[in-house]
Amino acid sequence: VSARMGANRYGKDGVRLVRVHRRPDGDEVRDLTVDVRLSGDFATVHTDGDNAAVLPTDTMRATVYALAPDELTGSIEAFGLALARRFLDASPATHRARVHLAEQPWTAHAASAFVRAGEEQATADVVVDRDGHVGVTSGIADLVVLKTAGSAFSGFLRDEHTVLAETEDRLLATRVTATWTYRTDPETVDHDTCRATARTALLDAFAAHDSRSVQHTLYAMGRAVLDAVEPVAAVSFTLPNLHHVAADPEGSAAALAAGPAVFVATDRPYGVIEGTVTREA
Amino acid sequence: VSARMGANRYGKDGVRLVRVHRRPDGDEVRDLTVDVRLSGDFATVHTDGDNAAVLPTDTMRATVYALAPDELTGSIEAFGLALARRFLDASPATHRARVHLAEQPWTAHAASAFVRAGEEQATADVVVDRDGHVGVTSGIADLVVLKTAGSAFSGFLRDEHTVLAETEDRLLATRVTATWTYRTDPETVDHDTCRATARTALLDAFAAHDSRSVQHTLYAMGRAVLDAVEPVAAVSFTLPNLHHVAADPEGSAAALAAGPAVFVATDRPYGVIEGTVTREA
Amino acid sequence: VSARMGANRYGKDGVRLVRVHRRPDGDEVRDLTVDVRLSGDFATVHTDGDNAAVLPTDTMRATVYALAPDELTGSIEAFGLALARRFLDASPATHRARVHLAEQPWTAHAASAFVRAGEEQATADVVVDRDGHVGVTSGIADLVVLKTAGSAFSGFLRDEHTVLAETEDRLLATRVTATWTYRTDPETVDHDTCRATARTALLDAFAAHDSRSVQHTLYAMGRAVLDAVEPVAAVSFTLPNLHHVAADPEGSAAALAAGPAVFVATDRPYGVIEGTVTREA
Amino acid sequence: VSARMGANRYGKDGVRLVRVHRRPDGDEVRDLTVDVRLSGDFATVHTDGDNAAVLPTDTMRATVYALAPDELTGSIEAFGLALARRFLDASPATHRARVHLAEQPWTAHAASAFVRAGEEQATADVVVDRDGHVGVTSGIADLVVLKTAGSAFSGFLRDEHTVLAETEDRLLATRVTATWTYRTDPETVDHDTCRATARTALLDAFAAHDSRSVQHTLYAMGRAVLDAVEPVAAVSFTLPNLHHVAADPEGSAAALAAGPAVFVATDRPYGVIEGTVTREA
Repeated sequence: VSARMGANRYGKDGVRLVRVHRRPDGDEVRDLTVDVRLSGDFATVHTDGDNAAVLPTDTMRATVYALAPDELTGSIEAFGLALARRFLDASPATHRARVHLAEQPWTAHAASAFVRAGEEQATADVVVDRDGHVGVTSGIADLVVLKTAGSAFSGFLRDEHTVLAETEDRLLATRVTATWTYRTDPETVDHDTCRATARTALLDAFAAHDSRSVQHTLYAMGRAVLDAVEPVAAVSFTLPNLHHVAADPEGSAAALAAGPAVFVATDRPYGVIEGTVTREA
Repeated sequence: VSARMGANRYGKDGVRLVRVHRRPDGDEVRDLTVDVRLSGDFATVHTDGDNAAVLPTDTMRATVYALAPDELTGSIEAFGLALARRFLDASPATHRARVHLAEQPWTAHAASAFVRAGEEQATADVVVDRDGHVGVTSGIADLVVLKTAGSAFSGFLRDEHTVLAETEDRLLATRVTATWTYRTDPETVDHDTCRATARTALLDAFAAHDSRSVQHTLYAMGRAVLDAVEPVAAVSFTLPNLHHVAADPEGSAAALAAGPAVFVATDRPYGVIEGTVTREA
Repeated sequence: VSARMGANRYGKDGVRLVRVHRRPDGDEVRDLTVDVRLSGDFATVHTDGDNAAVLPTDTMRATVYALAPDELTGSIEAFGLALARRFLDASPATHRARVHLAEQPWTAHAASAFVRAGEEQATADVVVDRDGHVGVTSGIADLVVLKTAGSAFSGFLRDEHTVLAETEDRLLATRVTATWTYRTDPETVDHDTCRATARTALLDAFAAHDSRSVQHTLYAMGRAVLDAVEPVAAVSFTLPNLHHVAADPEGSAAALAAGPAVFVATDRPYGVIEGTVTREA
Repeated sequence: VSARMGANRYGKDGVRLVRVHRRPDGDEVRDLTVDVRLSGDFATVHTDGDNAAVLPTDTMRATVYALAPDELTGSIEAFGLALARRFLDASPATHRARVHLAEQPWTAHAASAFVRAGEEQATADVVVDRDGHVGVTSGIADLVVLKTAGSAFSGFLRDEHTVLAETEDRLLATRVTATWTYRTDPETVDHDTCRATARTALLDAFAAHDSRSVQHTLYAMGRAVLDAVEPVAAVSFTLPNLHHVAADPEGSAAALAAGPAVFVATDRPYGVIEGTVTREA
């Protein structure tokens, strides 16, 4: 068969970038997903397997992180223009560079604690038995939060498979699922007030806590809910650890100290911390 | 083999319920997903195929919609208790009824227009060519909105496959994806201001418009963006029609007029309306 | 502002269609998802809210189901051509009709039982305690199966919220999650052989069983696993009821008897049946 | 408030592991997702922020990869037991280690080419215009394939953001979406035969090709389809690069040469290669 290479392009999808800039009047968080496409004189890459003209998609990824500290200071459009021009410079064979950017907003709850606008839900689990027993578990699900200061993880157990570095300064992000039970008759409780009060209490605790681990923060949030919501008997949390890895190989503490710091938001695998905090009689 | 039926339960998952109550000072929207589980004396249902004790899961679904007008007036916990007690009454074989409820919030933008807290994103698509050409398309994605008044769909073409009833009063919900191009140099535009202004303009138009169809609303939103954002040349929309079907067989107009109205929020299939509104020279 | 309506189109996405044709030498199953787009003279639909030219997207949906018995007899391309031509005939304002079709295959396990190629997984849950206790639960997840004969649901409890019709002939589809425990030391069991034998046993039981309900089939599959796999102590199932509703208002029994029958594959809500079948000493 | 820490556990979810063992009679591929949970004496981790007893979840991840070469030689149950025992040894505070494993099967197409049982679909896009023009684009979507030999990526462009190492021996995996157009009247083509022939041709080419890049393989698959399916005019591919990164820091070539090699299957970001191969007149 006589064939020729027609239209083609290539690139990287799903580059997840979080940029944190500590500021005296409140930290700034930018959370973007970036896709890149290059097109140009790439026919022989396909036909001959000659990679000399190929800027690897891994380099596109690295470039997005490398340019973010200085170039992601205004609109996503301006960052996209800087990236597209960089890709034209870096890849002589490219005729057209296309960059797609999507930004998801975070809302400041405190100077260094943020809530992601999202799929937060109020939940209730109600059980009634024929003998009249009533059980009510109320909760909040999918409340995504991020802490840009006051989070460390160090002093942990080490063995021959340990590669994780200790850090005194990192990002902490989780998707809170909290459920609680009542110590009084659940049919006489004002559930909506309890939920609103519990939500504020756990967010305030998340923001204020000097965290040594996700477990440590779990307990602080649990105590805060028990303090604030008198009818609650016990509160349980499931806290996936939404890891944000410093793009800078020097690590998160160095990056956060240096100025605008850039992190890779990862999907899988993720840590999971589960626990219950119970009111003592 | 000698076998016996052990622990078992059954129910319905994913009952999607939207309750709309028109009020002089602003409509009220409740949006729930309900799951039901019953357990009790159901061994012979399994072993003998005797369904006499089985309350069908379709009846659970219908019961959730039937009780919503009168019982979903306070907390989801109270609605769950009413449902669980109803299932114990309706199913003598049941020992335990469990109801799980999850509510997602809608924020009022106007008296009868709502925005769902969610995954809304700012988007940009930037293209730079080696010859210096720059193209910027800015946008908003996944802005989910609902209109509880001012939406009709009637006077459409009919044929032998038509089953849809005409209505002068229905719910209208969509997940707005809007993108726009600029008639001035995209590098000198204030993109963040343009996006904020476009967002407000299209939400206001969505709320105020007397809609004859999704297409009609698309055009109204497009005009509003062109009016409000001077640098925009053209604005394009993709508007999935997130169908809300009246649970009441009398239809949405009768249900909305009668008082609290209950709708089934459906996933698939869904209508899709796409179009561009362009500024005339 | 002076504006005009630019390019536009509209249609329906996600029309889920299952066509079953009973045949002496084995039933035939086609499973499609169809999307439709029309474009043409629709500017005034947008600008004036005049719906006279609009073929509703609900009619597109109904047309896909209506044409499937006679037209979905060969390739999806041929069905797409028949649909596109029908939409041009039904909608005089349309210049271009586009139909996108995606078919997912089902593999015959028996004359009227099918397995969907898919995300089936082998699973294991292993627990070891410091005191030496070992617990192993093995399983299969996401095994999607469909029965085109031998399934009824009737004789169930009725109340004022019952709308479901009784049927002696329907489709039965589920996504099997099965897990089992062992009555012998789980460290000496040949797990791979057990899993393969259990899988065959439950599929054969699913195919051969004269089902009165999902519960009834659950028990039959459980007995079959206990019969076939000697080391198994008990087997548990979670069986979502993937409802297939007859497109024909006369119901599934009439449709299946009449010849090629067309069903709407629904996503939500769905029934859930859970239960354990235990070996008696 | 007086509170105490109640039940708790922690672990890692979504550890994606692919183990490749080259064998003279055909390579062996195992593809698992592993979740880990530990519980025991961890109360003070929560209450005091003392991490001395905490085996980090990152170490759990690393342990899964480290044990896979020697321990994932039989059932997933046996691998789970080895992992659970390792975690009890590595973490003195742990009372109970739980490991959940899910394996997805790959089917050998050739000695070192595999197809993942999955969501593969046949697709068609049909357009009919009122003037009688007919356009048909046929295709295959979501055909997931993996190559365990014959794939390199080297000789590419380097700049100051390059971190990717060159490799002469790596895994290559992609989710093939292929679409083709016809050079003859699409209404007279035997589409089902064309699709089956195209599928075999592209899979054989994928298996046999000595790949220098995804682009190179794209062209080889395109030529093979044009060779095998006479009515096809041009074939287009979208090929996400489903990156598999060697768990061994020495890289994939060293790992594959050394014996059973372990890879991290990653989700995001991913490369995307798009291109069309056209028949010359």
